[in-house]
Amino acid sequence: MGKRIFAADIGGTTVKLGMFTVEGELLDKWEIDTRKENNGGFILPDIADSIKAKMESENIAKEDVIGIGVGAPGPVDKSGVIYKAVNLGWGVLNIKEELEKLTGVTVMAGNDANVAALGEMWKGGGEGYSDLVVVTLGTGIGGGVIIDGRIVTGYKGAGGEIGHIHINDDETEVCGCGNKGCFEQYASATGIARLANRKLGSSNEDSVLRKCEINAKTVFDAVKAGDKLAMEIAEEFGEYLGKGLANVADVTNPEVFVIGGGVSKAGQVIIDYGQKYFKKYVFHACRDAKFVLAKLGNDAGIYGAAKLALNM
Amino acid sequence: MGKRIFAADIGGTTVKLGMFTVEGELLDKWEIDTRKENNGGFILPDIADSIKAKMESENIAKEDVIGIGVGAPGPVDKSGVIYKAVNLGWGVLNIKEELEKLTGVTVMAGNDANVAALGEMWKGGGEGYSDLVVVTLGTGIGGGVIIDGRIVTGYKGAGGEIGHIHINDDETEVCGCGNKGCFEQYASATGIARLANRKLGSSNEDSVLRKCEINAKTVFDAVKAGDKLAMEIAEEFGEYLGKGLANVADVTNPEVFVIGGGVSKAGQVIIDYGQKYFKKYVFHACRDAKFVLAKLGNDAGIYGAAKLALNM
Repeated sequence: MGKRIFAADIGGTTVKLGMFTVEGELLDKWEIDTRKENNGGFILPDIADSIKAKMESENIAKEDVIGIGVGAPGPVDKSGVIYKAVNLGWGVLNIKEELEKLTGVTVMAGNDANVAALGEMWKGGGEGYSDLVVVTLGTGIGGGVIIDGRIVTGYKGAGGEIGHIHINDDETEVCGCGNKGCFEQYASATGIARLANRKLGSSNEDSVLRKCEINAKTVFDAVKAGDKLAMEIAEEFGEYLGKGLANVADVTNPEVFVIGGGVSKAGQVIIDYGQKYFKKYVFHACRDAKFVLAKLGNDAGIYGAAKLALNM
Repeated sequence: MGKRIFAADIGGTTVKLGMFTVEGELLDKWEIDTRKENNGGFILPDIADSIKAKMESENIAKEDVIGIGVGAPGPVDKSGVIYKAVNLGWGVLNIKEELEKLTGVTVMAGNDANVAALGEMWKGGGEGYSDLVVVTLGTGIGGGVIIDGRIVTGYKGAGGEIGHIHINDDETEVCGCGNKGCFEQYASATGIARLANRKLGSSNEDSVLRKCEINAKTVFDAVKAGDKLAMEIAEEFGEYLGKGLANVADVTNPEVFVIGGGVSKAGQVIIDYGQKYFKKYVFHACRDAKFVLAKLGNDAGIYGAAKLALNM
């Protein structure tokens, strides 16, 4: 039997776990609950127990495990320390050290968005590229910047926090981070709903959106059905998405943007609206960046965690 | 005698040359004219001749030269190809290959701003740091992003082109790059003069700036003398500088910004105005980035070119 890698993607509700070959084949995946009681003190022991149980049932010796990769929802520095994970109840915690103590296996940990980016580079939409930015358009906007095949962790593990790039001086509502005018106030799922509600309030035009729940899916379904008001909302979204990503491109000049997260389920239409304005705002030498859709969906985190362990 | 490294920093008027030890001691520096005739066809042969003459006069054998590092004013990719250097008359040119043919010594080439950043990391204001951004506030704004001690070259050599980050939707004048609202339209030397002239035009307030030439130096001299209008201009400058660098920080989370270029000659006052607004706009996890002044002045380019050759 070849060597194995284990992967854990820690979310606020469940921990996704996976077992991989070194070539990146996902042999098995399963989930456990994220127990947040006791300031999240059960989470790492639960992960350790689950992986040890899998090793026993599959007859895998410690020597055959290359490592465990972990993605966690917060800034994680290069030594595996997470600074705060509000969703889990964690304060400052050395994930690497703790989980190594519990398992006896080498551990690598990273921020979940960064780790998912690594997964998309390894086996997803970014396969074959080494200078890329993975953008997750979900409730907020997460990002993972990869240079020469390596995640940009940053000094305090906050590399790729592109959701909080400032792109609008005129915003009056406050972002979750406390600032005003952040990228994710416009180009995330929440942002699209906000743009839609504002537009519906300021316009008298008829629209299918006046008769349904407003969210990223209903807006882009309406766009695809040719709804004029929805298309105006999509233009606004595209301008913000393009402007934000242009600023990212001016810093790192990626070859490709990989667009994932719930919003990206609308498909190529997201890219079409965003790329149009990207080309308007970006510095000319960075203008030919490609845009592709992410491929791994919710599995990006475990693929990336496995790749993180493999890169050790 | 120990090994030697040669360095060339190609500018529009002169080529700065240097000879270094592997420890980074600058043993000798000199300049030659940049001959732009013949589409810049003399530039690399002139550099090769000058370095070969130095090797002969100093009795240095080819085997004792680790390499030649080159900084050039344009986007240079990882293979040493420059895509365009308008100032030199160059189109697409493989600097590495050409200069290796002319000298028989291994060559590494990079963009001049990126190479200067490497110099500041090695022996300047950024010494001891490995995640940093060097910002050159000159006629325009140049940048060099360094992650884990390595320059972010980017896919087409345009990494660190932070001068063209979009930070103002309301701008009506066009930047040299063709866009509107670029970072360098406000926070460069040219930008400061523009802000000053606008302010002088829109205000009736008295100011020493009404009686002198307007440039970055006269504006910050007036700030230091307590001139009220100059201080208002400096606040505006600081807001733009802070906003632009906050966006850079949200992408790569550097430990330190190293501020250089002509504008930085005004000293700590530049940092004080910029950092105040940086803290306002940046994502909280990136807020503790330090700001320091560059140290190497015009020698940053040759130091960085030498470091580039050393890193081969």
